[in-house]
Amino acid sequence: MKFKGKDIISMRDFSKKEIEHILAIAKKMEPIARGKKKSQLLAGQILANLFFEPSTRTRLSFATAMRRLGGGVIDLSEPEMSSIVKGESLTDTIRAVQAYADIIVLRHPREGSARLAAEIADIPVINAGDGAGHHPTQTLLDLYTIDREKGKIKGLTVALLGDLKYGRTVHSLAYALSLFGANMIFVSPENLQMPTDVVVDLKERGVVVAQTSNIEEVIPKIDVLYVTRIQRERFPDPEEYESVKGAYRIDLELLKKAKKDFVIMHPLPRVDEITPEVDQTSHAIYFKQAFYGVPVRMALLALVLGGIK
Amino acid sequence: MKFKGKDIISMRDFSKKEIEHILAIAKKMEPIARGKKKSQLLAGQILANLFFEPSTRTRLSFATAMRRLGGGVIDLSEPEMSSIVKGESLTDTIRAVQAYADIIVLRHPREGSARLAAEIADIPVINAGDGAGHHPTQTLLDLYTIDREKGKIKGLTVALLGDLKYGRTVHSLAYALSLFGANMIFVSPENLQMPTDVVVDLKERGVVVAQTSNIEEVIPKIDVLYVTRIQRERFPDPEEYESVKGAYRIDLELLKKAKKDFVIMHPLPRVDEITPEVDQTSHAIYFKQAFYGVPVRMALLALVLGGIK
Amino acid sequence: MKFKGKDIISMRDFSKKEIEHILAIAKKMEPIARGKKKSQLLAGQILANLFFEPSTRTRLSFATAMRRLGGGVIDLSEPEMSSIVKGESLTDTIRAVQAYADIIVLRHPREGSARLAAEIADIPVINAGDGAGHHPTQTLLDLYTIDREKGKIKGLTVALLGDLKYGRTVHSLAYALSLFGANMIFVSPENLQMPTDVVVDLKERGVVVAQTSNIEEVIPKIDVLYVTRIQRERFPDPEEYESVKGAYRIDLELLKKAKKDFVIMHPLPRVDEITPEVDQTSHAIYFKQAFYGVPVRMALLALVLGGIK
Repeated sequence: MKFKGKDIISMRDFSKKEIEHILAIAKKMEPIARGKKKSQLLAGQILANLFFEPSTRTRLSFATAMRRLGGGVIDLSEPEMSSIVKGESLTDTIRAVQAYADIIVLRHPREGSARLAAEIADIPVINAGDGAGHHPTQTLLDLYTIDREKGKIKGLTVALLGDLKYGRTVHSLAYALSLFGANMIFVSPENLQMPTDVVVDLKERGVVVAQTSNIEEVIPKIDVLYVTRIQRERFPDPEEYESVKGAYRIDLELLKKAKKDFVIMHPLPRVDEITPEVDQTSHAIYFKQAFYGVPVRMALLALVLGGIK
Repeated sequence: MKFKGKDIISMRDFSKKEIEHILAIAKKMEPIARGKKKSQLLAGQILANLFFEPSTRTRLSFATAMRRLGGGVIDLSEPEMSSIVKGESLTDTIRAVQAYADIIVLRHPREGSARLAAEIADIPVINAGDGAGHHPTQTLLDLYTIDREKGKIKGLTVALLGDLKYGRTVHSLAYALSLFGANMIFVSPENLQMPTDVVVDLKERGVVVAQTSNIEEVIPKIDVLYVTRIQRERFPDPEEYESVKGAYRIDLELLKKAKKDFVIMHPLPRVDEITPEVDQTSHAIYFKQAFYGVPVRMALLALVLGGIK
Repeated sequence: MKFKGKDIISMRDFSKKEIEHILAIAKKMEPIARGKKKSQLLAGQILANLFFEPSTRTRLSFATAMRRLGGGVIDLSEPEMSSIVKGESLTDTIRAVQAYADIIVLRHPREGSARLAAEIADIPVINAGDGAGHHPTQTLLDLYTIDREKGKIKGLTVALLGDLKYGRTVHSLAYALSLFGANMIFVSPENLQMPTDVVVDLKERGVVVAQTSNIEEVIPKIDVLYVTRIQRERFPDPEEYESVKGAYRIDLELLKKAKKDFVIMHPLPRVDEITPEVDQTSHAIYFKQAFYGVPVRMALLALVLGGIK
């Protein structure tokens, strides 16, 4: 296992053992992430946050992770204010920015752009979402959240709900959950089902998978409900979006049928997939989940920058 | 007196004794604020600057205050680039951002939003201006400026000039000045007078208060002239704004009638309420006032984050 | 030689000896710039990045330079989000911002604005480009790049190519190269030639200067080719721009005629003045050049802020 200098592009780049190692380091990072303990592990090192697409949470989460470890952060998050308006290519931007940093965190609307950036850059690149492509740190924090809140992943029944077709997080998550032995239920409108190749791949690897469009039917069996936002910007056809937006709404009524220790996750931002009353219940762990992004990203940064092994 | 973990929303949250304590700590912070002395008092701690409305000065002042004490800053100051465009509520933004920081500094155009944020957040919130509402750190730095430049507040005659109706800073300032025994003269166009309830409250608490629309008449009696910008964005009716903009203009001619040691303050930015020639006189202390915001905010951050008592 | 507290506005402010001193310090800074060595030389000090015009590279380069030396950075790079929209003058912005920082780095579209800012500010100002005016840190890093990559400047033949009329970097660069004894060839479309007064000044000081519009003709004689982007925004007349854009395009074909150890520089961002294939050749040093901006700016910051002499 060698993390130093590695690019983090897709969950497929990790073995199960490597993921377990990241999550174990993340746990040790928690007191620092909460500001209870100080660290200078990455002092003098610099992270470049390159965000070509809006993302409050991911950008701030990486910034905090780096700062809590004593490192510095430089920001290129207003493409309209940058060289981009002068017609510069992504390739050139990456080549220049790597002169100013020890690691690049890239968010870009075009699928495959993170892999491209990693090939160009001499310093490590972390993919913070490349359009409809991958977002591995989201998946890692999702796994970490389940493990921390449920004490295990193996044997749990996890339902993934919402846009399972265009949503970038859920394909990686399904794959990662399968490595850890979770059973899965995919809940979506008919035209937003999990792509067949993903389902086939899971089944071939022995995962117990069910599919439905009816959340009420399956809610009593679920240990973890992972809700996703149906994202207008991912739909090629606006009419398709209009037909499914608001398809699911998790409310107190629905929760009556759920297991007592059942938990609800959401990558955030939420619009109206979950009603605010649900936030007050013990089931809601999506804000904890946002916090868990910090120790997980601290672990990755420390590993990739060589602060720990 | 317990500051650690406290929200800073309105001047009304402070006793006179507490204000005096903050100002005393601010004085000790001055050498650090000027870069003459180094500090790591808040090392490892993180401030989130959440600005939903333009504000150069306040944002940079908090950032510098935190950095001079060794802390880190994360910035969410481009709402158009953030989750807001995805339809997220302020409540959710606050809940997520608190996962990344030890303290939130919030500027928001809606009155009451800071109080709301403070109720939601588990970490302290400092109100950096909530629309027509409060802006307590501005008032604290105003008091500090008078005390530092005049050596006292008690017994001084302070004139507040400009928009006394919609201007958010002046109501808090009048209240705070009354705690410290200043006399007040309110100078404004007739339709922008200090609201009656503010005046009544001050008189009931024994403050000597006068009202006029004529600055020339009262200038010889004044020790401190506090000029405010007439802010277009606070007027419900654009015509009302047009009728009063440029109502007052402090120039060298006017200053001839003033006391020798009289001083002029302004929260900045200034547009044309004060002519540039005035900047060269010993009366102009508004840029010093901008600087005093740094030690005052350092004092607050150190107190609220538990760096000092 | 006294750098502490000095403003850095134009190359004309430096003697040859002072430039040599800066470049010597820059060389010592390289290991820190590469993240191989840690420094706290400027700990507790704050740089204000004031960018009134887009510039990824320069802004990030200064931010990294300051952070690698342990200092803090505050950013005012979104003028639309700032007090500017409230009608504040540059003078007032500078006066306020100096209350929050130890040094100001200013980029502004108006020629002369950096000199103005320096006169107003009590703290040092570094000009990071003032429109069609000066950009001294670019010139310093250009000199440093040549010296580092070619081992000397004296006696080299340097060709400056592109818009030599409106381009802000090339006039300063020609002057600076002349101090160090380089020969120069100016290559441009006829209507974008180096201004006569610049050429006359160089010749009077004994510099060997040639002018041409044909790059192929002179390529075999050149040691350094400095390519500039023809910048639309500098042209008073859009038609003039249309007639010359794409006038030169450095490609592999052209390079066949070049010296073996010939190098190509570019201040970046590049649009299509140099084809991507050229990046793979040993001639291309423009991304190294971007990196060299970091140690050069570290040297300047350390000198001006008194971290070293």
